[in-house]
Amino acid sequence: MTRADYDVIGIGNAIVDVLSHADDAFLAANGIEKGGMTLIDSERAEALYSRMGRGTEISGGSAANTMAGVASLGGRAAYVGKVRDDQLGRVFAHDIRAAGVRFATPPATSGAPTARCLILVTPDAQRSMNTFLGACIDLGPEDVIESEIAAAKVTYLEGYLWDPPRAKEAFLKAAAIAHKAGRQVSLSLSDAFCVNRYRKEFLDLVTGHVDILFANEVEILALFETSSFEAAAAAVRATGTLAVLTRGAAGASVVTRNGIITVPAAPVAQVVDTTGAGDLFAAGFLYGHTNGYSLEESARIGATASAEIISHVGARPEVVLAGLVAPKLG
Amino acid sequence: MTRADYDVIGIGNAIVDVLSHADDAFLAANGIEKGGMTLIDSERAEALYSRMGRGTEISGGSAANTMAGVASLGGRAAYVGKVRDDQLGRVFAHDIRAAGVRFATPPATSGAPTARCLILVTPDAQRSMNTFLGACIDLGPEDVIESEIAAAKVTYLEGYLWDPPRAKEAFLKAAAIAHKAGRQVSLSLSDAFCVNRYRKEFLDLVTGHVDILFANEVEILALFETSSFEAAAAAVRATGTLAVLTRGAAGASVVTRNGIITVPAAPVAQVVDTTGAGDLFAAGFLYGHTNGYSLEESARIGATASAEIISHVGARPEVVLAGLVAPKLG
Repeated sequence: MTRADYDVIGIGNAIVDVLSHADDAFLAANGIEKGGMTLIDSERAEALYSRMGRGTEISGGSAANTMAGVASLGGRAAYVGKVRDDQLGRVFAHDIRAAGVRFATPPATSGAPTARCLILVTPDAQRSMNTFLGACIDLGPEDVIESEIAAAKVTYLEGYLWDPPRAKEAFLKAAAIAHKAGRQVSLSLSDAFCVNRYRKEFLDLVTGHVDILFANEVEILALFETSSFEAAAAAVRATGTLAVLTRGAAGASVVTRNGIITVPAAPVAQVVDTTGAGDLFAAGFLYGHTNGYSLEESARIGATASAEIISHVGARPEVVLAGLVAPKLG
Repeated sequence: MTRADYDVIGIGNAIVDVLSHADDAFLAANGIEKGGMTLIDSERAEALYSRMGRGTEISGGSAANTMAGVASLGGRAAYVGKVRDDQLGRVFAHDIRAAGVRFATPPATSGAPTARCLILVTPDAQRSMNTFLGACIDLGPEDVIESEIAAAKVTYLEGYLWDPPRAKEAFLKAAAIAHKAGRQVSLSLSDAFCVNRYRKEFLDLVTGHVDILFANEVEILALFETSSFEAAAAAVRATGTLAVLTRGAAGASVVTRNGIITVPAAPVAQVVDTTGAGDLFAAGFLYGHTNGYSLEESARIGATASAEIISHVGARPEVVLAGLVAPKLG
């Protein structure tokens, strides 16, 4: 095994977020599932956008947010994802590179435009996401470059990749390359609705292909079809896969073969927008894990990164996270 | 004179802002004039963008921000400006309509892309703007619809319109229509560098075509080539044009033939980004002026709207301004 060029390489749906404020009545009137991610087609995207208020466009995408977080913590990160050669695609590419993340996937030159996610933030800081996958449906195994995957300590995959048709092939190819190179594979369950769409496949992945699993409480409950967190934690522990389970204000649990390590949530003066909370927890944990920190320390870095992201609108860090984390670990 | 359909119609450069944080060293290294607006060509825009950090895309444009402010205050606003039929153009059109502003200018179907302004916000909350005019250069007198102008109590024009070649024809056509219909014409000087580019023409406008002038301190000093605010105020008073002069934390002065009314700045907990401060002061004043408030009350509404905009990133209101203003006037 050669020296790694990257701490983490992420593969995901490359999306520009369109953030807007809305109230619960708007969600109800427009049939929007609160707190989740719903896939929408181009017609629905047009209709919903026309009814939404003013938007703020910010690069997003779950794994892309995580890679931006790893880089902000001082880690070496790369990203694989598909945009179109259009204005929003250039915005996405600029922003992830400006974050210090290597991004070399060629944009699609025909077909659907760059993906966007219409995110409605309600006064309770919850976000309800409506994703038009656009050019993401063109991501395929040809975009997974063996030398890049083999050069990363961890390959990180978002569960959302199960939605576009050919991305799961890319996903499985990347996992196989990583393991062949003696690297680790990590999966985020992404979303409870996503888990419900692909439960059997995700269970197979968790038991057979994944070394580090990220999930929040509702996602892990959905995966094991239980209403008991303890039962879900026991079930994931039985698989032997390292699991990082986040529980919002209740903190997070790292489930290992040998037991469960629990860390508290980091304090937040005001929760403004929970978009990206899980993405940034994963960033912190993966940064710690690939840079010699213990599981508990890694989870604490995750909690710190997550606290920063929910204190403002948007899912990319507004400060250099390394500055928040270093003193605590010093 | 028929009953007005709009309180204010604004004409300006239709621009999407790309906001990014930068330090003074970045400005110096990239030769950026701090605090002003510099016009850049497409090559410079590409180069500067590639060196900038992550951006947040938000609809901007000086007069467009002002119209969004008027609508947020409960006023009836319309806007004339030119975008291209591209993704950023659709973002601009969506956002201004979502703000409740009528916007019917057809987008350009060929030529340069929608304009963007690369705004670097330094830690002192100052913004340095670098504008690529793009499709704005296609705005011409054919975009000024007589019935729309005649239907607005005030036609509001941004000084920046002197930059694109044919927009000044649109500007003068609109002013002529407004006056013929017995309406008022208002001009914002926009920027001290802009004043330096077009001083003679702006002086002619102020004395001959404009009923209400908006300027900040450096702009009015530049217009009259003096270093004394009192001298500048006296000079503008001599023209007989009503002038609203903003002075940041020192408040604002409304200069009339009969004297000068001074109002304090509204309190702000933390100044985050001064982008849009002048635009929203104008919005508040114009809303008040076209809705039966006194000059002093109108200036106080301007100060309140301006205080909201500088307390967050971006130049469009984040709350319904009517809610901030109504209790104070009740």
